[in-house]
Amino acid sequence: MSKRAVTEYPINDAMANRWSPRSFDPTAVLTSADLGPAFEAARWAPSANNLQPWQFIVGYRGDETFAKIVNDLSGFNAGWAPDASALVVTVANTHTASGRDNAYARYDLGQSVAHFTIQATADGHMTHQMGGFDIDALTIALGVTEPWEIVSLIAVGALGDPNKLPEDRRDAETGPRERKPLTEVVR
Amino acid sequence: MSKRAVTEYPINDAMANRWSPRSFDPTAVLTSADLGPAFEAARWAPSANNLQPWQFIVGYRGDETFAKIVNDLSGFNAGWAPDASALVVTVANTHTASGRDNAYARYDLGQSVAHFTIQATADGHMTHQMGGFDIDALTIALGVTEPWEIVSLIAVGALGDPNKLPEDRRDAETGPRERKPLTEVVR
Repeated sequence: MSKRAVTEYPINDAMANRWSPRSFDPTAVLTSADLGPAFEAARWAPSANNLQPWQFIVGYRGDETFAKIVNDLSGFNAGWAPDASALVVTVANTHTASGRDNAYARYDLGQSVAHFTIQATADGHMTHQMGGFDIDALTIALGVTEPWEIVSLIAVGALGDPNKLPEDRRDAETGPRERKPLTEVVR
Repeated sequence: MSKRAVTEYPINDAMANRWSPRSFDPTAVLTSADLGPAFEAARWAPSANNLQPWQFIVGYRGDETFAKIVNDLSGFNAGWAPDASALVVTVANTHTASGRDNAYARYDLGQSVAHFTIQATADGHMTHQMGGFDIDALTIALGVTEPWEIVSLIAVGALGDPNKLPEDRRDAETGPRERKPLTEVVR
């Protein structure tokens, strides 16, 4: 199934082909070597003063970290995300080297995550980011402490069968991707 | 001059080759068509609830928007950034559709900017993001109003002569790029 973006200008394949499924194949397995290139790409993202205010905690299906993350998923995410091969917790360092608030912490983490998802797509993996989880519980479960802060989760894996999704979710899964027109985005 | 990232795992060329110069060619010209693919890539970034909380205001060297941005550059940025062919102001929508704070506004803007810089690099352009500018003055000069908020600037152009930089900046310009080791970034 291709959901390639319909673009006015040609763009890089990995960015055109990247989309966020909710149907993952529960039998597909990923290892840390499989995700090496994606984390390597994330590592080379730019950041304010090269502070690199990012860290990633990875669980692979079947391990203890994965189980902790699954345990704190909310709502519909708790239904589909456990089928992913890996769940990645993204963590931002909210402070600068001098201990002040880093206004670019989330912005730079976002850049690093984009590098991750683009490389993962290039390597044939599917990714889906989530904000729906119990952040306080997961912070304790994973022992994340200040100035670090959990921001998002990324499900990574292989595409599964959309027919396993609840009926009201299937259209979004198989339908076209939508974005605001370029004229609203650039001025 | 190549400053390709030295990686343990192979990564996409545009991400490996992307770096942030301070020497831009003051004679190189870019048009809105030249940056079309980069903005198209930015447009297709993922975001929480597909809110797409990003907007880009572009000045091309010689136009009024470019002059306004140059006017509010701070410190060393005021020296090198005017040589860029284009200056892009990145703007985040800080609210969700229901008017609440969007905790993912900067994170998602960062993802969109990463898409922009990766596509721009693939197209042969150099990019350099900046936080050093008078944000209040530029907000007024460009008429940006709530819930939108200026976050960063991106200089885009062609690589210039590093020997034109002040002596104490030349080493960083021509030296190797540095990042924390992968073992510090992933756990």
